[in-house]
Amino acid sequence: MRSPEPNRNGGLMTPSPGPRNQSQFHSTVSVQKNRRFNVLILIFRFAAFCFSLASAIFMFANFHGGSDSDSVRWYHFDAFRFVAIAAAIVALYSLFEVGASVWEISRGATVFPEVVQVWFDFSHDQVFAYMLLSADSAGTALARTLRERDTCTANNAFYVQSDISVALGFAGFMFLGFSSLLSGFRVVCFILNGSRFHM
Amino acid sequence: MRSPEPNRNGGLMTPSPGPRNQSQFHSTVSVQKNRRFNVLILIFRFAAFCFSLASAIFMFANFHGGSDSDSVRWYHFDAFRFVAIAAAIVALYSLFEVGASVWEISRGATVFPEVVQVWFDFSHDQVFAYMLLSADSAGTALARTLRERDTCTANNAFYVQSDISVALGFAGFMFLGFSSLLSGFRVVCFILNGSRFHM
Repeated sequence: MRSPEPNRNGGLMTPSPGPRNQSQFHSTVSVQKNRRFNVLILIFRFAAFCFSLASAIFMFANFHGGSDSDSVRWYHFDAFRFVAIAAAIVALYSLFEVGASVWEISRGATVFPEVVQVWFDFSHDQVFAYMLLSADSAGTALARTLRERDTCTANNAFYVQSDISVALGFAGFMFLGFSSLLSGFRVVCFILNGSRFHM
Repeated sequence: MRSPEPNRNGGLMTPSPGPRNQSQFHSTVSVQKNRRFNVLILIFRFAAFCFSLASAIFMFANFHGGSDSDSVRWYHFDAFRFVAIAAAIVALYSLFEVGASVWEISRGATVFPEVVQVWFDFSHDQVFAYMLLSADSAGTALARTLRERDTCTANNAFYVQSDISVALGFAGFMFLGFSSLLSGFRVVCFILNGSRFHM
């Protein structure tokens, strides 16, 4: 997308630009800043998607010990079920938000109407961040307790894989938290200006 | 505090109030709405203080079984230490915020400068809400695991007291979350109007 009059001359502006030029200048800067902001959100969303998907896959694939009676599986434990399902929900949500973000960058418009979109993003970011943190805290506590109690080394791979899944979940939570900050900022911009652009 | 010209006549206003009257009307309504908002915050803060203090006391006093070797104490378990300390921190913070809220209602001014106060409240509400939720999720997972593994009923009182403490902690988290919503609203008002008043 090219600006019809490229009037960004390295920080130096002509002393008295006409009002039309100045408004075009502001509009161009605003569009560019908004694009950079959207790309930043896209990166955070994509990172949250990768980490939570990896967390879900590690937990769903966490069964060891064959089919005999001493096998341990992730769905035998409440907290690990919670970790797996929370990570899967966050991965699905992040995938949707990555799509919405790409749509917005490529077409310059939001998927839903703007007011719905900014509030949808912010509220879901908050709720899912709380959910993921809660699941991973519970998973950490369970993994620690199991490891202390169970001195049998046959299940060591199970515990290591649980720890990896929980750690990946915490990384996903971190990026979801960053996304939540940015979408909160967009809500404030929307309330301030009546548009999601922050200028 | 009495308004010099009481011009709130049951929702009916004279058709053409002078600009001076109208601004006084707006100011009076704004002060009253702000006071109601502050009282609501005070109630939530006080509830969060009560629940988190009760949670901390229940956990700190959680030792059973006498001084012999089979006694169980809260500080033997990581997650219960986390629950006790997080609840104690939230109780201290809520006590401070109750004081700040009472100060603001009685004197009409914030303890810190206004811009510091609104951001301080919101950021600490967010961080402490995440911390308390994380602690209580970990505590829940630990309590469930211990209860499943340990079939000895001698320690039943210990588990019941842990559960009560964790449940009180969740109640404290809920009220802290409500406070966080209201203080987030105050931040938006401050950015919008340059003051914490929401009109």
